[in-house]
Amino acid sequence: MKSYRKELWFEAPTRRALINITPEVEKCLAESGVQEGLALVNAMHISASVFINDDESGLHADFERWLEKLAPEKPHDQYAHNVGEDNADAHLKRTLMGREVVVAITGGRLDFGPWEQVFYGEFDGKRRKRALVKIIGE
Amino acid sequence: MKSYRKELWFEAPTRRALINITPEVEKCLAESGVQEGLALVNAMHISASVFINDDESGLHADFERWLEKLAPEKPHDQYAHNVGEDNADAHLKRTLMGREVVVAITGGRLDFGPWEQVFYGEFDGKRRKRALVKIIGE
Amino acid sequence: MKSYRKELWFEAPTRRALINITPEVEKCLAESGVQEGLALVNAMHISASVFINDDESGLHADFERWLEKLAPEKPHDQYAHNVGEDNADAHLKRTLMGREVVVAITGGRLDFGPWEQVFYGEFDGKRRKRALVKIIGE
Repeated sequence: MKSYRKELWFEAPTRRALINITPEVEKCLAESGVQEGLALVNAMHISASVFINDDESGLHADFERWLEKLAPEKPHDQYAHNVGEDNADAHLKRTLMGREVVVAITGGRLDFGPWEQVFYGEFDGKRRKRALVKIIGE
Repeated sequence: MKSYRKELWFEAPTRRALINITPEVEKCLAESGVQEGLALVNAMHISASVFINDDESGLHADFERWLEKLAPEKPHDQYAHNVGEDNADAHLKRTLMGREVVVAITGGRLDFGPWEQVFYGEFDGKRRKRALVKIIGE
Repeated sequence: MKSYRKELWFEAPTRRALINITPEVEKCLAESGVQEGLALVNAMHISASVFINDDESGLHADFERWLEKLAPEKPHDQYAHNVGEDNADAHLKRTLMGREVVVAITGGRLDFGPWEQVFYGEFDGKRRKRALVKIIGE
């Protein structure tokens, strides 16, 4: 069994951002040499997400509005967590979007449907943060 | 290490449907010959879900109402994604329900609690779509 | 390939509880002897969750309020599932929080970011229930 590990680093200039990391994950897979197996991609921070959806700007605007409706950032003092912090909403938004994805690897490729793209979802940005890519297989 | 891959195809006659695919996944596991490992089951479409919950009709009615409350289909023009499309709500509903499940395989069986069943959740149906089953192990 | 399996049992004295199980999962990993691989931790019940977030009491209070807002327990008769049962909200809350986590194992350790902790989320407690830890790797 082969295993491979890499950290992907980000520094979003805005509090919230959706970043397509599919090319980086594909590069990791090529480096791993794995032909058949599983790739785990997860946020290493609890105020960020890794998820799979469409790379379409209208949908991303919808995600922003929808997440703000279900888990609004402000007022900051609505959350018990926000004592000396202001990112409680980021923990909730990441819960909705999910921490991780597991992707099948078949024939040395990410085994995706036609529109599947992997995103890093930042909900408390403006600082260096990272995602983990772990690949196992043969 | 053994690996196994199969696509499960669906064509739901309605826009939304919850389809119990546990027997199909069990059949895949039997075909794979894997005794110890992991099974990944994921939607290959970004407007559909694979999730685990109870096969109980009242709960499924509750899911329908709840998803419509948190991510309503209509009016279609409330979503920026719905330009030449009408399925933005399906992307959001699938986000709530999740893209994938990972299931332990022990002794050649899906290692489930007493009520766990795997479902394909369709949120933009009336066309052919698919889920992926990927199994690795020994 | 090595594989390892263990059930973790709980009996929360309250209907809802968030229990940090990171030490138990680390103990499983040590017992498994796996150095490189993946750990799956999942609720075996469909009214409970396993998720990763921060072990901070304010945030946990926020989760309680937020889950009650998005998937309120009462009135019980608002849910079709609640015929002879009263736990429909627990199925919905678990859907929001997620059934499972998959964690990378690197160098014999859970490969976590600085604040990641694994929780068992109970949403229909006061009885014995369990989570599954399945580890595969080398």
